[in-house]
Amino acid sequence: MALIVQKFGGSSVADAEKIRRVAGIIADTYNAGNDVVVVLSAQGDTTDDLLEKAAEINPRPSKRELDMLLSTGEQISISLCAMALEKMGLPVISLTGWQIGMKTDSNYGNAKIKGVGCERIKSELDKKRIVLVAGFQGINKYDDITTLGRGGSDTTAVAIAAAMDAELCQIFTDVEGVFTADPRRVPNAIKLDEITFDEMLELASLGAQVLHNRSVEMAKRYGVNLEVLSSYVRKPGTKVKEVTKMEETKISGIAKDSDIARIAIVGLRDEPGIAFKIFRVLAKSNINVDIILQSIGRDNTKDISFTVAKTDKDAAVEALQANKEAIGFSSLSVSDKVSKVSIVGAGMIKSSGIAVMMFEALYDANINIHMISTSEIKVSVLIDTDMADLAMQAIHKKFFGV
Amino acid sequence: MALIVQKFGGSSVADAEKIRRVAGIIADTYNAGNDVVVVLSAQGDTTDDLLEKAAEINPRPSKRELDMLLSTGEQISISLCAMALEKMGLPVISLTGWQIGMKTDSNYGNAKIKGVGCERIKSELDKKRIVLVAGFQGINKYDDITTLGRGGSDTTAVAIAAAMDAELCQIFTDVEGVFTADPRRVPNAIKLDEITFDEMLELASLGAQVLHNRSVEMAKRYGVNLEVLSSYVRKPGTKVKEVTKMEETKISGIAKDSDIARIAIVGLRDEPGIAFKIFRVLAKSNINVDIILQSIGRDNTKDISFTVAKTDKDAAVEALQANKEAIGFSSLSVSDKVSKVSIVGAGMIKSSGIAVMMFEALYDANINIHMISTSEIKVSVLIDTDMADLAMQAIHKKFFGV
Repeated sequence: MALIVQKFGGSSVADAEKIRRVAGIIADTYNAGNDVVVVLSAQGDTTDDLLEKAAEINPRPSKRELDMLLSTGEQISISLCAMALEKMGLPVISLTGWQIGMKTDSNYGNAKIKGVGCERIKSELDKKRIVLVAGFQGINKYDDITTLGRGGSDTTAVAIAAAMDAELCQIFTDVEGVFTADPRRVPNAIKLDEITFDEMLELASLGAQVLHNRSVEMAKRYGVNLEVLSSYVRKPGTKVKEVTKMEETKISGIAKDSDIARIAIVGLRDEPGIAFKIFRVLAKSNINVDIILQSIGRDNTKDISFTVAKTDKDAAVEALQANKEAIGFSSLSVSDKVSKVSIVGAGMIKSSGIAVMMFEALYDANINIHMISTSEIKVSVLIDTDMADLAMQAIHKKFFGV
Repeated sequence: MALIVQKFGGSSVADAEKIRRVAGIIADTYNAGNDVVVVLSAQGDTTDDLLEKAAEINPRPSKRELDMLLSTGEQISISLCAMALEKMGLPVISLTGWQIGMKTDSNYGNAKIKGVGCERIKSELDKKRIVLVAGFQGINKYDDITTLGRGGSDTTAVAIAAAMDAELCQIFTDVEGVFTADPRRVPNAIKLDEITFDEMLELASLGAQVLHNRSVEMAKRYGVNLEVLSSYVRKPGTKVKEVTKMEETKISGIAKDSDIARIAIVGLRDEPGIAFKIFRVLAKSNINVDIILQSIGRDNTKDISFTVAKTDKDAAVEALQANKEAIGFSSLSVSDKVSKVSIVGAGMIKSSGIAVMMFEALYDANINIHMISTSEIKVSVLIDTDMADLAMQAIHKKFFGV
């Protein structure tokens, strides 16, 4: 008898009909002879509704009280879903974060999991019950409720799968799996049967919003077999594992991130320590920098360009302007009409010419590249946003033939 | 430094503005130098909304899952109210039923309190924090969430006041206190400064919906000083205590209950055991009987009339018809157009003529009495519902002069 952990997100349990659909999937898994632990998120807009209620009363509530408030959302989901399974005549019990002993640190709003007490879940599984667990939440050492932040329910599912040594952790979403590119941008995108943790991590951080990085990192660390699949279409999704049988020469996917901005610092003195001064200023303002490019400017000066998250653009400009004297530059040029398009593949490092194929595809499509960044398993280029979809399609055609 | 426990019901915390008003009352109590523990109910219609969500999925969910669902309502209230107090710059912490160690039996939906762990509340009060507690909820020995049923939040407040030996337990409602009669029925009704537990118990069970009986019984048992007061008008309410300074000859209040039905069993044989047979049948169907009247009928028969809650009427008739042979009667006559009007007063037993004054008031108003029932501290009469308000006014005028 295998233990399977399943996780359904907020849109999958948004209303009574969807909850019944989810209950159907759970019931099939249970009736096939598996032990089943299910992690649920808050229904559809519940979290936003609760945040709105809070904002009406206090625009800056303590995170401790916000977690107390928000954790009710998942509790509502698990009890409603339990009722749906009861209606089908199945043995089921819902459990909150504190009831399963989901211990976290005290970083309210973004708590880290410190451990999962498996006793309660095990004793319920021994009674042949389906166990529904409230995702996204835990308790700290003071017995106060914490929430895990973005991707929290995925992380809950992976943590339970790791602690209980589950055979499989299935993350149900509104897409059928991980694709070679976003199907909304690249109509010919192909669903992958398998992908490695590292590839998934690169794809997630590059803007393919299927799985949250944190849950993938945890799955990789504890060797949890993940599967991303659809809660609407009953067919196999994409397995995420340590090693896949993928052909070495192929890339696994193409991702686009348009939530970025490029900042160019023009007319810097060409002397040591300039880059250090710039990025210390940004680090002090808690701004993460992605691609960095340094080029030679006119008259013994140099220019440094880099990308930041679009939401950090104004803060970055402000921080740099405030330190204009100390850094020493003539002007800043800012653009947020740029996108990062990346190819990811674990086999990339072993196969020369992958990057060249990408550049060739862009050249054939007459798309200009502003910046380039590479790692062991990815190649990213910065291009104009209005060319980004075309670029993805051209690259996809080059690598996958469609 | 006195400890004051305050309880606010669902209508008092229904929206952001009302929560701010409640926060103002709490802040004043705290700023006056008191330790303050506050028990809150779920906001306005939250419980109904949750029940509706449940009904959509499963018309008969398990009580265990229903309690899991409903307990979120109070958790939302306490966190929102905590945010309002934070906004005022006050130290505050919200705590759920399980966090304060509110231990109950496992009778989901109507659990009885077995004990309150005071450690967490005490340690928070020691930190000079206002403590907000989710009413209506507890946990059983399995660490599963239970709810306390009707009047649950009042009971939570009284239980905490008893366990913590509070100086006063204030129950805030939408009325200014306990009145000599329902002000909506008797415009001249007078607010009482004090009332005894026993009088309050009679008034509550007679349909004066100010305090739930269960909380009054607990307050009486543990000697908790109660005060019923308004969350809208800032003035003293009605103190409920063991002994009051009330004048002995006066009654303390008049109550009306229209949610009743009268059932008359006609043509019973005049022999021993008939009453036993009738009320055993009703008891087996879990039907509570209130006033009972036996009268002599025609031709060596007798009639027995009694009142039941309106909601039990059909079940009572069904049970009696099913046992018509065994009991032996000719017909049933049922009316739900009757009301019970009662006067309550601890001094009643010591003062002859109180019941006579009531009957005289009704006679003067030309109101016919169907049944009479008396106890040590009350006299109840059954009259036609369309005369009930007139009856209350006439009785009020007789006893209170207005």
